[in-house]
Amino acid sequence: MKKTKALYEGKAKILWETDSPDYMVQEFKNDATAFDGTKHEVIAGKGVLNNRISSHLFGLLKDKGVRTHFIEKISDNEMVVERLEMLRVEVVVRNVAAGSICRRLGIEALKRFDPPIVEFYLKDDDLHDPIITQDHIRIMELATQEQVDQMRSDALTINTVMRGFLEQRDMVLVDYKLEFGLKGDELVLGDEISPDTCRFHDAKTGEIMDKDRFRQDMGGFIEAYTEVLERVSS
Amino acid sequence: MKKTKALYEGKAKILWETDSPDYMVQEFKNDATAFDGTKHEVIAGKGVLNNRISSHLFGLLKDKGVRTHFIEKISDNEMVVERLEMLRVEVVVRNVAAGSICRRLGIEALKRFDPPIVEFYLKDDDLHDPIITQDHIRIMELATQEQVDQMRSDALTINTVMRGFLEQRDMVLVDYKLEFGLKGDELVLGDEISPDTCRFHDAKTGEIMDKDRFRQDMGGFIEAYTEVLERVSS
Repeated sequence: MKKTKALYEGKAKILWETDSPDYMVQEFKNDATAFDGTKHEVIAGKGVLNNRISSHLFGLLKDKGVRTHFIEKISDNEMVVERLEMLRVEVVVRNVAAGSICRRLGIEALKRFDPPIVEFYLKDDDLHDPIITQDHIRIMELATQEQVDQMRSDALTINTVMRGFLEQRDMVLVDYKLEFGLKGDELVLGDEISPDTCRFHDAKTGEIMDKDRFRQDMGGFIEAYTEVLERVSS
Repeated sequence: MKKTKALYEGKAKILWETDSPDYMVQEFKNDATAFDGTKHEVIAGKGVLNNRISSHLFGLLKDKGVRTHFIEKISDNEMVVERLEMLRVEVVVRNVAAGSICRRLGIEALKRFDPPIVEFYLKDDDLHDPIITQDHIRIMELATQEQVDQMRSDALTINTVMRGFLEQRDMVLVDYKLEFGLKGDELVLGDEISPDTCRFHDAKTGEIMDKDRFRQDMGGFIEAYTEVLERVSS
């Protein structure tokens, strides 16, 4: 498969068109950004780690019957994915309170949510990705009610699979963001699953093993991502 | 009934305990506030108008079988209401886009929503009343699922009643905020229903007949509220 032109360059990835209309190459960059892109650094090795971690986790989900866009890892920092028409919605699942939900609602950090919370956000940098409800999704025609129900159901299935897998590796799946797209009428999980898009804590020490280390200037960023890779590939 | 002590003083109202444990006196003040209280004025006549308008609209809803806290108007700026244990949730119904939904989601002003949108907000000044979902209501234990369903259903019944009533008076019910409380296990509509808590537009001219005149420094505030009173009492 041959890359032709970059269709979309985001903060952390480039999506390349290929000589096949059905497939794209997803390239992971070394850029780390936070706070709507106001904080930005290039961190050598990040792209390779996220590509490897995402490949492992997509592989896990595929094995468990989740429909994802992942085809195969083709280089250190690239994977082949199915071409999707992405929905303008982010789906967030929270097992433990962290980040924006604590600031927005005054909820104590590390409070456990059982059953987990599923939230939807509008993908819109200019509006700072506001939280939205099913009513907003309806009136903005972002997805059908059936697609919303399917995203919620898939997000919870993914939660069960990922949480169990990570628990066995002494990691807590705190929260994560998913993006779905359409292949024809079929809803398919796209984007990436990495410490950029998930929060992982060490189950024994509580140590932060995700992008919060960058957001909070904690250091040990590449070491944490390397440790995540080691555990998910063990 | 005799007022004893002020239990709660808000931005626009005082709730007085009385010599009866079941009833309170709700006094409407002349204070107008906006933008989390950063804008504040005292507008002579506002309390009297809101007391009259609220009394009319609560009376209308009671006649249509909606369970409200309203008992009777007892003076120019006071009504007797049932004492409720208020929920920490605001319910907003939107028939037409205006205000925060346009800013938050980039929706064009005056877009019509059919069916209407029902939103829930956390009553918390320090957090600027953030929008919340049913999941947040559950984990913060703000209401039971049954109460959420009942609030949504009551809010839509109220919408049908009020919209029809106002249409006959050449007014568009753009949106409004409701607050519910509990009398034992029973969910009861509390607070007020006035141009402070609803947006009303003149159906023919589109003229703004609500607190947006204050928020936007448009002038003609008391004239607009007086016109609302004349129409709802006609």
